[in-house]
Amino acid sequence: MATGFRNRIRQKNIEDSGFGNNASGRFIRKDGLPNVERKGVNILNRLSWYHTMLELSTAQFLSYLVIGYILINLFFALIYYTIGVEHLTGIDKSDPVNEFIDVFFFSSQTFTTVGYGRIAPVGFMASLVATFEAFLGLLAFAIATGLFYGRFSRPRAYLKFSDVALVAPFQDVTGLMFRLAPFKNNALTSAEVVVSTAIEINENGDAKAQFYTLKTHLSHINTLALNWTVVHKIDEDSPFFGFTKEDFKNNKIEIIVHVRAFDEVFSNTVVQRASYISKEIVFGAKFVPMYYPAKDNQSTVLDLDKINEYKEVEMPILVSEE
Amino acid sequence: MATGFRNRIRQKNIEDSGFGNNASGRFIRKDGLPNVERKGVNILNRLSWYHTMLELSTAQFLSYLVIGYILINLFFALIYYTIGVEHLTGIDKSDPVNEFIDVFFFSSQTFTTVGYGRIAPVGFMASLVATFEAFLGLLAFAIATGLFYGRFSRPRAYLKFSDVALVAPFQDVTGLMFRLAPFKNNALTSAEVVVSTAIEINENGDAKAQFYTLKTHLSHINTLALNWTVVHKIDEDSPFFGFTKEDFKNNKIEIIVHVRAFDEVFSNTVVQRASYISKEIVFGAKFVPMYYPAKDNQSTVLDLDKINEYKEVEMPILVSEE
Amino acid sequence: MATGFRNRIRQKNIEDSGFGNNASGRFIRKDGLPNVERKGVNILNRLSWYHTMLELSTAQFLSYLVIGYILINLFFALIYYTIGVEHLTGIDKSDPVNEFIDVFFFSSQTFTTVGYGRIAPVGFMASLVATFEAFLGLLAFAIATGLFYGRFSRPRAYLKFSDVALVAPFQDVTGLMFRLAPFKNNALTSAEVVVSTAIEINENGDAKAQFYTLKTHLSHINTLALNWTVVHKIDEDSPFFGFTKEDFKNNKIEIIVHVRAFDEVFSNTVVQRASYISKEIVFGAKFVPMYYPAKDNQSTVLDLDKINEYKEVEMPILVSEE
Amino acid sequence: MATGFRNRIRQKNIEDSGFGNNASGRFIRKDGLPNVERKGVNILNRLSWYHTMLELSTAQFLSYLVIGYILINLFFALIYYTIGVEHLTGIDKSDPVNEFIDVFFFSSQTFTTVGYGRIAPVGFMASLVATFEAFLGLLAFAIATGLFYGRFSRPRAYLKFSDVALVAPFQDVTGLMFRLAPFKNNALTSAEVVVSTAIEINENGDAKAQFYTLKTHLSHINTLALNWTVVHKIDEDSPFFGFTKEDFKNNKIEIIVHVRAFDEVFSNTVVQRASYISKEIVFGAKFVPMYYPAKDNQSTVLDLDKINEYKEVEMPILVSEE
Repeated sequence: MATGFRNRIRQKNIEDSGFGNNASGRFIRKDGLPNVERKGVNILNRLSWYHTMLELSTAQFLSYLVIGYILINLFFALIYYTIGVEHLTGIDKSDPVNEFIDVFFFSSQTFTTVGYGRIAPVGFMASLVATFEAFLGLLAFAIATGLFYGRFSRPRAYLKFSDVALVAPFQDVTGLMFRLAPFKNNALTSAEVVVSTAIEINENGDAKAQFYTLKTHLSHINTLALNWTVVHKIDEDSPFFGFTKEDFKNNKIEIIVHVRAFDEVFSNTVVQRASYISKEIVFGAKFVPMYYPAKDNQSTVLDLDKINEYKEVEMPILVSEE
Repeated sequence: MATGFRNRIRQKNIEDSGFGNNASGRFIRKDGLPNVERKGVNILNRLSWYHTMLELSTAQFLSYLVIGYILINLFFALIYYTIGVEHLTGIDKSDPVNEFIDVFFFSSQTFTTVGYGRIAPVGFMASLVATFEAFLGLLAFAIATGLFYGRFSRPRAYLKFSDVALVAPFQDVTGLMFRLAPFKNNALTSAEVVVSTAIEINENGDAKAQFYTLKTHLSHINTLALNWTVVHKIDEDSPFFGFTKEDFKNNKIEIIVHVRAFDEVFSNTVVQRASYISKEIVFGAKFVPMYYPAKDNQSTVLDLDKINEYKEVEMPILVSEE
Repeated sequence: MATGFRNRIRQKNIEDSGFGNNASGRFIRKDGLPNVERKGVNILNRLSWYHTMLELSTAQFLSYLVIGYILINLFFALIYYTIGVEHLTGIDKSDPVNEFIDVFFFSSQTFTTVGYGRIAPVGFMASLVATFEAFLGLLAFAIATGLFYGRFSRPRAYLKFSDVALVAPFQDVTGLMFRLAPFKNNALTSAEVVVSTAIEINENGDAKAQFYTLKTHLSHINTLALNWTVVHKIDEDSPFFGFTKEDFKNNKIEIIVHVRAFDEVFSNTVVQRASYISKEIVFGAKFVPMYYPAKDNQSTVLDLDKINEYKEVEMPILVSEE
Repeated sequence: MATGFRNRIRQKNIEDSGFGNNASGRFIRKDGLPNVERKGVNILNRLSWYHTMLELSTAQFLSYLVIGYILINLFFALIYYTIGVEHLTGIDKSDPVNEFIDVFFFSSQTFTTVGYGRIAPVGFMASLVATFEAFLGLLAFAIATGLFYGRFSRPRAYLKFSDVALVAPFQDVTGLMFRLAPFKNNALTSAEVVVSTAIEINENGDAKAQFYTLKTHLSHINTLALNWTVVHKIDEDSPFFGFTKEDFKNNKIEIIVHVRAFDEVFSNTVVQRASYISKEIVFGAKFVPMYYPAKDNQSTVLDLDKINEYKEVEMPILVSEE
């Protein structure tokens, strides 16, 4: 029946989605990034290690730092040990283990430039290695400083999207709607949303994805302080016109959302993307409000836990055109 | 009487203000941020600690750093003390208090990596803790570096707004006006202003805020070096057309101002917002000039202290339409 | 005769220059910043110390750092000296001067966290002060790091403007032209220029500046790699239409230039301004080319020293309209 | 025959390319930067050392740091040596070489602020120099920190362009096409491409470059996750209309490409340029696809090694207009 689509969708499909017709799987992953694997060239050229470091979780990032710190110290401890502990003053020479332990801590005291001096290098080789370890230590922390700053100064939209999109009566027709809300103490203004959809269509046998723009009732909002329910009216101009609950369920449909806003704290444009596939579209349901006046009536409360709350509504019987 | 508004205001209200009709209190706080409280999710996810650190006053920020520094040292001092002072050389063992004091200072000398060495760790445990304290210290200052930079490199408009908006005769009609001026040595160009208003209207009992755009006589300015008096002409196209002094006083009106400019020092777009509620609107007054030629006639002087100076003017009798 | 202007200039003057009519002196200083002095509020609120630090010359900036470093050490040396040298180990007690010198160097060794330990604090007070000096030292260098980065990462256009603007025959009429060229190894693209002029006009006695837009023959350029000669055609649509050499000389005229481009290295928009007053306008002269093919004919050479080179040209006799 | 062009190319040439008609060699180097040498002013004013540092390869950058580190230490070692080793404690005085070695390492221990203290300054001069070396060391690492951050936080497009442009049948006519693909883990959206061409035309003897805009079939793409094949249709509106294989081969033609996109990780606009000269244009060839569904059909694979793969195609015989 999917072939029926071809004739039913009268809208012109867009060519500039950037995704190919025979790309497979969902196009935008739930985390908002395009669902593409890159191969070829070598991994080092393919990865921007800075982008990678920025996208690590704080836990991962910190553990990498600690592990790196330990490995570097072990590495230098080994070198000092090979050079010979007699080139370091104040080493506890009671037994090899204690020797190595002291050498290890000397290394860390050099790398961090704390340099107590209880253990200090004597002679050329040990001093030379220490000279470069201290230098390396400072560069390492110079890089760490940059990474920390890069991580927490990175402009982000901090938007929470509803897990599902809903289809419900809207004005005189039906509408496909989802909602989003800023969940951090940033200040977003002049937010814009661009919504498109990919519908898989069978053409003499093989499935091809076609892309269509979904017009939204409001595509711009001045101050994004409360939640924003984005609505696409399913009227004659919509590729979904005449779609039944089954059409949404049984076919490969993906709603692609792109939000762009200006963060007044970062003074920077921020963007965030989301996507809804067939099984994330609920037919015949509408959202319940998620904000209300504060008790003192002096401000408004936005309850972020309510973002996914919706209740069923009766849908008008659609006259399917098949 | 407020119901009278409904019929009197002929302008189409805007839907993209981002504020709901049943939001309460003033919409934009005097500091320019939206008057919304967020709840739900947990506080940690709801707060961007970086945004928070950026918005602290310098005094708060510095005291947080100092307090943190002391607490961390107390924490580590406790650990060293538990491990035993015999694992630190050069401790004043005269009595427990002196011991703890020396241990505390050893901690600080490690955390800051100053490491005099008069007190130095001996043995595994103490050295290990010291190793990680020094590491932690460097990371802490890496973060501090980022925060300092983030704080003072954060692009801001540095605009001073007049405390009140005035209604005065302007050209052939009356105008609602307020003024703003840059108060720091930054260089703002191509400044734009967007003004809208929220008017509370009674509809069969319950109050609903309606939003309207306020056209401005000049909405763009090339170089924002002197003060800028923004004027909204109250003519047929204004939602305030026919408003009397009482209308402004007795009803819930809020003027929402949004200024965007380009800072040539930061090479970045900066924005600032302001808002005026009913009791901040003065009827029948106009601003006195706040700039004048310098004595040597070779430059212009902008006197920021004058920004709130205005004098009463006679208003034409408005034929109220009620 | 200046009154003659009023009738002669048919163009509509612009209101959004941002400069007042009775502002005095040149509007844009030769360095491109608006010629405005701010007073009122207090100096600390009026100065963004960060903007100030960014605009210092490298020499000034570095000497401030050095002076600050010395003063801080003197300050702390004094404190340690007051506490008593007996609370510092390893002090040369031969005489008060040597004592103070050693105390001073102890301070610097603490502030920089180098902490040799030859001199080290003993007892509570000295250790406490040292603890905070080391802390202060690290914060100071955290700030210095931010300032260094802020200074050299600050996006700038690095444009060189010709010292004078020329009036020469251009196409079928005459043109007012000046030129600019990038003088550093940055890569500017999609450059735009906006030119306006302020002409002082006598109105029943008092002089008022009127602002006019100057249309340019080309207002946009794709790649700003060579020099760009910006030309304003003095035709019927120009406020300068019919101006004689004397008109340019004897009247208060200022050409205000605003260039905006995208720096591909900073990935940031950069702007630069310039201004030409009457005595910087040369009547009857045209620029000589400043670029030519390289010897090997494989690239083009831009000679920045030629930017101000021009030669006289004969001007058509203008039929003055007075 | 090149003169034939003049009459054949009906399109209006553009004036805002920013390149002069008598500039020589290719306009945009293969690395995307304009092919211009600057002379005049002095080298220091002409070079932005920061831009230079940012464009160094990592290897160069690091070796500069190491070399600088060694030179600075040699320099200070010399000073300490001149002052006299008796002003440093703990020096190995066995022979001059050992003395110098110890002095050198003392310098490095001061510059890095590791300050073990085994060697420490005594007396005024040595302490004074050490004081400033430690200060210098911290500033040096402050600058290094800024450079590291500037280097890896610098927004770049990370686009790979096909080495050649192809001319192949496209829709009902022929098209000139090249392709590009993001090769790192950044996320580019709303990418735009601007293509122009420089054609050298003989005019009564001397060769002049004329610039023309090349319209592209698609000039904007929403998500730049897969490769993008940019196509210029060679129809009546193209300056290449009627060009034969020989015309492309025998004449000085350069295709100039400018891509601009938004990087969602940097939250910044990034640009990249490329250029194709005559010998980089292949007549009668089309690209082979470089992406395909992943095995699990759950995502798409982009094979970057395929970017230059093309196969020959038969070209319709063009009726040359000469």
